[in-house]
Amino acid sequence: MGKVYAEISMSLDGFVAGPDPTLEHPLGEGGEELHEWVYGLATWRERHGLEGGEENADSKLVAERLAATGAVVMGRRMFSGGQGPWEDDPNADGWWGDEPPFRVPVFVLTHHAREPQQKDGGTTFTFVTDGVGPAIEQAIAGAGGRDVQVAGGAMVIQQALCAGVVHELLIHVAPVLLGGGTALLEGLTEADVRLGPAQVTPSPRAVHLSYPIASA
Amino acid sequence: MGKVYAEISMSLDGFVAGPDPTLEHPLGEGGEELHEWVYGLATWRERHGLEGGEENADSKLVAERLAATGAVVMGRRMFSGGQGPWEDDPNADGWWGDEPPFRVPVFVLTHHAREPQQKDGGTTFTFVTDGVGPAIEQAIAGAGGRDVQVAGGAMVIQQALCAGVVHELLIHVAPVLLGGGTALLEGLTEADVRLGPAQVTPSPRAVHLSYPIASA
Repeated sequence: MGKVYAEISMSLDGFVAGPDPTLEHPLGEGGEELHEWVYGLATWRERHGLEGGEENADSKLVAERLAATGAVVMGRRMFSGGQGPWEDDPNADGWWGDEPPFRVPVFVLTHHAREPQQKDGGTTFTFVTDGVGPAIEQAIAGAGGRDVQVAGGAMVIQQALCAGVVHELLIHVAPVLLGGGTALLEGLTEADVRLGPAQVTPSPRAVHLSYPIASA
Repeated sequence: MGKVYAEISMSLDGFVAGPDPTLEHPLGEGGEELHEWVYGLATWRERHGLEGGEENADSKLVAERLAATGAVVMGRRMFSGGQGPWEDDPNADGWWGDEPPFRVPVFVLTHHAREPQQKDGGTTFTFVTDGVGPAIEQAIAGAGGRDVQVAGGAMVIQQALCAGVVHELLIHVAPVLLGGGTALLEGLTEADVRLGPAQVTPSPRAVHLSYPIASA
């Protein structure tokens, strides 16, 4: 089997979403700046059905990860687009459209059981109600030997780290200060997670830090 | 004149000191781990009157900075060793001993006026009571054309950043989670500080991130 890695973009002050998220701005005030580094990349654009884009250190990293990843685990808010209507309506759709960019099995953590969804382009959404451990187990089984990405949000990554089932923490540090919001690593200590030395991919847009998890 | 840079070690979750600082552990619970990367270096050991030590990417960076720096600005707690007795007794000494490692003029921010102190090895402590701006101005004047380091703590660095007088923010990100304590960038937003793209020096012990301050 492949490895399990958690991947997310974070501000230099440690937030993965800004303050005051709304339906229009699910990432909160300033939160979209966290992902500025990725929007222009050829690899990202191709996944979203767009042409063109940049080829650089960032796109190389993204392309390698996409190729290596066989399944994704995410929380219900990431599926539904933040504080979206789905939280009140378990039958509402996600916000990823008819052809989501994942193109692999996606396992969504939720308290509401619902039927799996098959989307165009290879993405399936399977809803898991018994916690992050079982979700990751299902993702490993569905990844065809490739890696499993724990894609967020912060709470899902924290739960996965604390469960000791994550081998690598990949953080894209954006040169941004949000001043508040959702802290990625809120309250975690060495008792929960021991990090190994970082492997670093620098780029002008973001610093990519990959930490092996010594406690996994 | 040289540039003004703020330099400090930070945990991956954004803290420059851990929770519950005491006289014995002024950096709080786990806080000393932030500086593990520096203790073994030849350059650090030489400054502290010790022989031997490692020569690597970390020591090269430290040596270059020490050579380029002509004055230091710090807060009263850094001078006195955290929650030390000096806060109650304005005549008490600092905790840096008779031959402090700075070997340049040091300007200490405080509310208590006191006489300058001349130490062995070239360090002088001058006490500044009218705020971070004037302290940095005095440091520039005393730096002999070299750079000025704003060495901490967090509050002094925040004040200096907000005053718009810092050209560079140099953070040593230690692979450590403290789970609480003193947040380096607490509450700062893009309205206070705009960061440019980071220059990165990776090492197995810490990731050194140098951000130009676009708003300075």
